[in-house]
Amino acid sequence: MKTYTVSDLLSQDITLQQVDIKGWVRTFRANRFIALNDGSTLNNIQCVVDFENFDEALLKRITTGAAIHVKGELVESQGKGQSVEIAVSELEVLGDSDPETYPIQPKKHSFEFLRENAHLRTRTNTFSAVMRVCSSASFAVHKYFTENGFYNMHTPLITGSDAEGAGEMFRVSTLDPRNPPLNDDGEVDYKEDFFGKEANLTVSGQLEAETYAMSLGKVYTFGPTFRAENSNTSRHLAEFWMIEPEVAFMDLAGNMDLAEDFLKSVISYIVEHNKTDLEFLDNRLFDEEKTKPQADRSPMRLLEKLKFVTDNNFKRVSYTEAIDILRNSKPNKKKKFKYLINEWGADLQSEHERFLVEKHFKCPVILFDYPANIKAFYMRLNEDGKTVRAMDILFPGIGEIVGGSQREERLEVLKEKMAALDIPEEELWWYLDLRKYGTAVHSGFGLGFERLVMFATGMTNIRDVIPYPRTPQNAEF
Amino acid sequence: MKTYTVSDLLSQDITLQQVDIKGWVRTFRANRFIALNDGSTLNNIQCVVDFENFDEALLKRITTGAAIHVKGELVESQGKGQSVEIAVSELEVLGDSDPETYPIQPKKHSFEFLRENAHLRTRTNTFSAVMRVCSSASFAVHKYFTENGFYNMHTPLITGSDAEGAGEMFRVSTLDPRNPPLNDDGEVDYKEDFFGKEANLTVSGQLEAETYAMSLGKVYTFGPTFRAENSNTSRHLAEFWMIEPEVAFMDLAGNMDLAEDFLKSVISYIVEHNKTDLEFLDNRLFDEEKTKPQADRSPMRLLEKLKFVTDNNFKRVSYTEAIDILRNSKPNKKKKFKYLINEWGADLQSEHERFLVEKHFKCPVILFDYPANIKAFYMRLNEDGKTVRAMDILFPGIGEIVGGSQREERLEVLKEKMAALDIPEEELWWYLDLRKYGTAVHSGFGLGFERLVMFATGMTNIRDVIPYPRTPQNAEF
Repeated sequence: MKTYTVSDLLSQDITLQQVDIKGWVRTFRANRFIALNDGSTLNNIQCVVDFENFDEALLKRITTGAAIHVKGELVESQGKGQSVEIAVSELEVLGDSDPETYPIQPKKHSFEFLRENAHLRTRTNTFSAVMRVCSSASFAVHKYFTENGFYNMHTPLITGSDAEGAGEMFRVSTLDPRNPPLNDDGEVDYKEDFFGKEANLTVSGQLEAETYAMSLGKVYTFGPTFRAENSNTSRHLAEFWMIEPEVAFMDLAGNMDLAEDFLKSVISYIVEHNKTDLEFLDNRLFDEEKTKPQADRSPMRLLEKLKFVTDNNFKRVSYTEAIDILRNSKPNKKKKFKYLINEWGADLQSEHERFLVEKHFKCPVILFDYPANIKAFYMRLNEDGKTVRAMDILFPGIGEIVGGSQREERLEVLKEKMAALDIPEEELWWYLDLRKYGTAVHSGFGLGFERLVMFATGMTNIRDVIPYPRTPQNAEF
Repeated sequence: MKTYTVSDLLSQDITLQQVDIKGWVRTFRANRFIALNDGSTLNNIQCVVDFENFDEALLKRITTGAAIHVKGELVESQGKGQSVEIAVSELEVLGDSDPETYPIQPKKHSFEFLRENAHLRTRTNTFSAVMRVCSSASFAVHKYFTENGFYNMHTPLITGSDAEGAGEMFRVSTLDPRNPPLNDDGEVDYKEDFFGKEANLTVSGQLEAETYAMSLGKVYTFGPTFRAENSNTSRHLAEFWMIEPEVAFMDLAGNMDLAEDFLKSVISYIVEHNKTDLEFLDNRLFDEEKTKPQADRSPMRLLEKLKFVTDNNFKRVSYTEAIDILRNSKPNKKKKFKYLINEWGADLQSEHERFLVEKHFKCPVILFDYPANIKAFYMRLNEDGKTVRAMDILFPGIGEIVGGSQREERLEVLKEKMAALDIPEEELWWYLDLRKYGTAVHSGFGLGFERLVMFATGMTNIRDVIPYPRTPQNAEF
């Protein structure tokens, strides 16, 4: 007797065969109908028990969360809601689940409660659907880049350099935390630490990715990055996964094309491969939003929004145009923005990004050519001397999902910018080498994986799209 | 005029077309033949310059490492060594490379020298081949698991638990390193740290992966793990990537089947997709080994060894059998082992593993059913009460490449083992929950990705199969 998954049973044409399956009980009703789930799909298989043929004590142990082993014949279902079901001939309880104490009851739990029980939350429909989408998205990322001639590389997580300045860093050390060795100046003597110098967790693999792009042509990283920022918001994690492609001989226009094509491809992959999960999440979000005032509801349902992204061109708008639009916008004139836009050079806040995407353009927007002084040192200075070839992609509901740029490939310009920001050349001697030996135009971007999953699943708190979120005051599990 | 990669030009039938290509000069000989590489393949495209038609000053800038842009006609090559070449009509230098200072000269460099120039080493044939294989291996991992119904999950890197005890850990902190806050007992007060408690870098995602296997069925992680051990060997890194599948309802036999099938599948993928790279690496290793005494050379060439793994069954041997073989072996009787095997219960050293794999069985070996007291607390105790359902896979030249086990699914047995090792239940309350609610047989393994790449590429130092190795006293780049 072959062992099957629930997904096999529901998708293959094997009615009237003897089947053998293991899974967990979702519900058991009328002492007769077991809804069995094994994680292979959102759907359950109905197992029909003829209770007169089974020991009562055994049936009492068929409780929500119990692991069971079922054998029987797969037959066409007599009831509604499923096409096939198992007429159970043998039943074994592998692991009990005490209904008095089991946290995941067959009812609606709050996401807060489920975060506290994150080790059990994928036993619910919502989180199993989210995590299956998450897994598909991850594969879609690797598939896209592989099929487009990119090489995956593992950039280091522990870094001896803190030059990039994309955010606050976590220190990594094996020194005695109570009595660290001090040098003559009374400072911690990192020479005695594991790496022989101060080490931190990386905020980005970009600079290392550039080194590989300048030899292998097209590369990408997909790994964890860290921010030691005290941001307790629904959009920030202290540890998150970032995707960073980097391409030699590609300029900013090419970078925009790549990012747009990449996002569409990943979302299309999910839409194609996770129909059941997405339909469930679409309905979940729709139901949830019914409880909100009309003005706070999404103008589109989840699946519409995904289709909208894959089927439409992203609007490309220069920072300068965007500032004009914002300056003349109603919320600016009526002083509804918290940060009013008065002049060119202002950094855009989340409220401005959302206005552009959700109210003005009503589609994903690529902003480009930002003022140099609000962007990182490695971005290519434009001929105007005041803007850089940076781009941010803004998504409805999420805000910034991609940040990228063409990189400054000119040695002297890069050195000047580093000097202006007090970044010592010795720190980045290897990064400068790329501009000394065979330099060329190159570009890349970074995409926060969990933000993409938020967008794809309609989940509104980033803590709900990663298995075990790390945030200020929280490293449980 | 379409932009091509070198790989396109060498593999597509587009002779007599006008082509446009950018890349880096590998060599320029006779003022006429440029070997151009862009990373898309190990091979170079030959660009033939009719020097009389170009400015002498321009040609002087065609030096090793320079980035150039070439236009011309793709024609059948007149010379040997390549089928097609570009008859150059336009030539532009994008980025110069001063031959006086450029570290990567067209000659053989030592691997030590190239480690110091790790940002440039993929500009050599060996390292570009290794990193392309590395990338293929990574994709093959994701492809295998996706096609076999596994879900990828991101387990946390920063962990508040140090219960697993797989190795020394790095502490992660944002406290003032010089003046950490102390509590009343004079100990560091981690309540004031970022996560509100002591946090470390993980040594394994297994325990978290188990939580997801017990709801989603089949899951895997593929991410960085850390060891703060002062091991300066050619087989250890402080930061490396680990692959950890975990499967519900799978026992140790299934685990062995999975690991063997997985390894064969990944290696087959590389052999199929990286022919050029592997042929180069095969020759490189063969040449290198010629300089060694006969006894130190591999009995098989690289490609033979890969084929041997994919075409043969792994030998499955119990620990007890292995001890018998080792006790009666020549090197043991002649006291050639550094650690002599006298009795059952001894931990196997690298010398013993190599003897079993390379001398005795001459094939990959799966050892299983190890003594409980030399293995981790979470491994399933056998009925004999003294062995656990653990397995290690040993590969020729590499030693242990996989370590796995069936997990202890019985709550009371697990609690006893934790108590014996002073692991507080409060630390792993969530791990114990898995045994309280719907527990079932489950198994998984861990595979060090870089060791697999070492095996696949024939590289003998693990520092040479990861872009920027982290080892004691080294976190450069």
